[in-house]
Amino acid sequence: MPPARQTPTATVGPVLVIGAGLIGTSLALGLRSRGVTVWLQDGSPTALALAVDMGAGQLPEEGEPSLVVVAAPPDVAGSLVAKALIDYPNAVVTDVASVKAAVLDDVLRQLEQSGDEEQLDRYVGSHPMAGRARSGPANAHGDLFHARPWVLAPTSSSGDKAQIAVRDLALDLGAVPVTMDPAEHDRAVAAISHVPQLMSSLLAASLVDVPAEALSLAGQGLRDSTRTAASDPDLWTGIIAHNLAPVHEILTSILEDLTGLVEKLGVSGAQSVPLPPGATWAVNRVVAKGNQGVARIPGKHGGLPRRWESVDVLVPDEPGELGRLFSELGDAGVNIEDLTLDHSANQPVGLARLMVLPQVLEHAIETLRERGWKVAGGRPK
Amino acid sequence: MPPARQTPTATVGPVLVIGAGLIGTSLALGLRSRGVTVWLQDGSPTALALAVDMGAGQLPEEGEPSLVVVAAPPDVAGSLVAKALIDYPNAVVTDVASVKAAVLDDVLRQLEQSGDEEQLDRYVGSHPMAGRARSGPANAHGDLFHARPWVLAPTSSSGDKAQIAVRDLALDLGAVPVTMDPAEHDRAVAAISHVPQLMSSLLAASLVDVPAEALSLAGQGLRDSTRTAASDPDLWTGIIAHNLAPVHEILTSILEDLTGLVEKLGVSGAQSVPLPPGATWAVNRVVAKGNQGVARIPGKHGGLPRRWESVDVLVPDEPGELGRLFSELGDAGVNIEDLTLDHSANQPVGLARLMVLPQVLEHAIETLRERGWKVAGGRPK
Repeated sequence: MPPARQTPTATVGPVLVIGAGLIGTSLALGLRSRGVTVWLQDGSPTALALAVDMGAGQLPEEGEPSLVVVAAPPDVAGSLVAKALIDYPNAVVTDVASVKAAVLDDVLRQLEQSGDEEQLDRYVGSHPMAGRARSGPANAHGDLFHARPWVLAPTSSSGDKAQIAVRDLALDLGAVPVTMDPAEHDRAVAAISHVPQLMSSLLAASLVDVPAEALSLAGQGLRDSTRTAASDPDLWTGIIAHNLAPVHEILTSILEDLTGLVEKLGVSGAQSVPLPPGATWAVNRVVAKGNQGVARIPGKHGGLPRRWESVDVLVPDEPGELGRLFSELGDAGVNIEDLTLDHSANQPVGLARLMVLPQVLEHAIETLRERGWKVAGGRPK
Repeated sequence: MPPARQTPTATVGPVLVIGAGLIGTSLALGLRSRGVTVWLQDGSPTALALAVDMGAGQLPEEGEPSLVVVAAPPDVAGSLVAKALIDYPNAVVTDVASVKAAVLDDVLRQLEQSGDEEQLDRYVGSHPMAGRARSGPANAHGDLFHARPWVLAPTSSSGDKAQIAVRDLALDLGAVPVTMDPAEHDRAVAAISHVPQLMSSLLAASLVDVPAEALSLAGQGLRDSTRTAASDPDLWTGIIAHNLAPVHEILTSILEDLTGLVEKLGVSGAQSVPLPPGATWAVNRVVAKGNQGVARIPGKHGGLPRRWESVDVLVPDEPGELGRLFSELGDAGVNIEDLTLDHSANQPVGLARLMVLPQVLEHAIETLRERGWKVAGGRPK
């Protein structure tokens, strides 16, 4: 692979990164790889030493940073931002917490208490939409933000210099800046991230007492629906606790839908005959409305959802077989738009579901058959 | 790929397949590819002609089939089974509907009405855990059942001959037979399939009024959680309407959890400060219980969940690049256990998340770096 073209770096150091967790250390590593001086600070001496050892930066020197990035959880980010604005009277300050209105409220309250409201023009909250399943500096990587959206949430008080500096930070780290109002951001992440997390957790929680034999029938659908349920409870408690109103609003609406559905499905006595009045319509309406909702999620490249065609291929579970599959499709000029691997019960074979553009579907299937692949179906209902 | 070893075929035709939809036609194609005579029957002359044209079988001839497979929706499967048991007094009869107790009830009721209860020993209900996003004979494929579980749900009346014939059918089609009680089967699919479908639909339905800009921030997590929400409402209405009691029971329990959560998150006035009493604990408990539930879903090959390590790699969105990635890992002896493709906003690059066994993680990363791949993080929270 030829090296990616290196775009010029706009961020001028020193950048003070407060918080050497996954996000702070990744950010610092990304800046260091572009030659920017990074100062690191963390309440945990161990995390700090680890981040320094990884090459993410150095301990702060005398003087003032040009940019301060607060990479701390929502419950402390606001205080740290306010303190940075007061300590460094010329620096631009941002934070990267996953909620923006609650952090801004904290910043405002603290600045008002010390009569420093005018410092707010140097602050722009932000939120890189990136993360990993594991937290901590050891899992950090400078490419973490590459090609991910990075929300900038300026207020009416945010000055141009601050807005440009934070936008440059996002661009220098390979992210795609997106500007949103703080409250708008919080409603957005409630809908696309916080509520989906809780729904996935609620569904997975319902499996706690399901017999193992039943779970052994599970297919890719259940795995997909519950994947995020493996996330860290403490992390999510901190995030959701600081975005309660938007999360509560959406959950209340889902609760109404679920209550209605459960009422209609309520049966007494017989298993299913006759069907309780309204049950079929209630199920149909929920699934049909879900169709509408899922169709609105943008597809690849942030564009409108595309309709891809799927091809299912049986792949022996051996090193190199997936490679051969993709090489042969690549040689035939077929691009894989998306892909899932489906797992089989007790079989040394996997089902790869390839998504391709409709216009290349026939060509892809022909190519696969010519090369001896078993083209099949197989997603469990 | 060398051709799969052909195991001997135990099923003896003619097999009468009633219902030339996706499942019936796939089943018929699979039997035909093993040389078994298949008779096809369907209320729709068009579907029947299409299935015959595809080589799935022929119109029934004089005489009695040895095996009848009713491949019809749950609301009509029972009547068709009862009729087949009466029409063909020596044939084994099975159905492949996604619910088993309601179908059995229908069969029993109809046999009792005509005084044919003793015919029940030739019936064994079954359920192949396979399907595709699109229904109809045109999407059928003889390999649809390969490596999928196929539940056999005999009753105390089912005779040995019938049980063995249906088990042989599953094995001949490459599936993995699993025996369960009909009610046990229905509780299992309620937990692993029907309720997850409804939860996914409810979540996706909550996106109907979310602004497009918010949805453009969506990451892989939301796509995973809502993938099954794209399923056919009419199909699911028929399935769930015939499994109401188990679905209702699980949904009621989730409703209780959600009601408790919404109550605790309920805030009046301020966005988030001070936090309402109990809110943090409520969130933490739901997410932690979800951790427990998701950990119980078996991993690949039906075994206990394995802990894989993930490696994220940036892949240019061009034909052949995924192929090169897998070839190079395959050459290095690294097997990909699982894989997801993450999509970037407005970037011609994709993030491939590879799951590998912990013992090969370092080797995989070294191999990738040596070959010039960008190894990164990147799952959005």
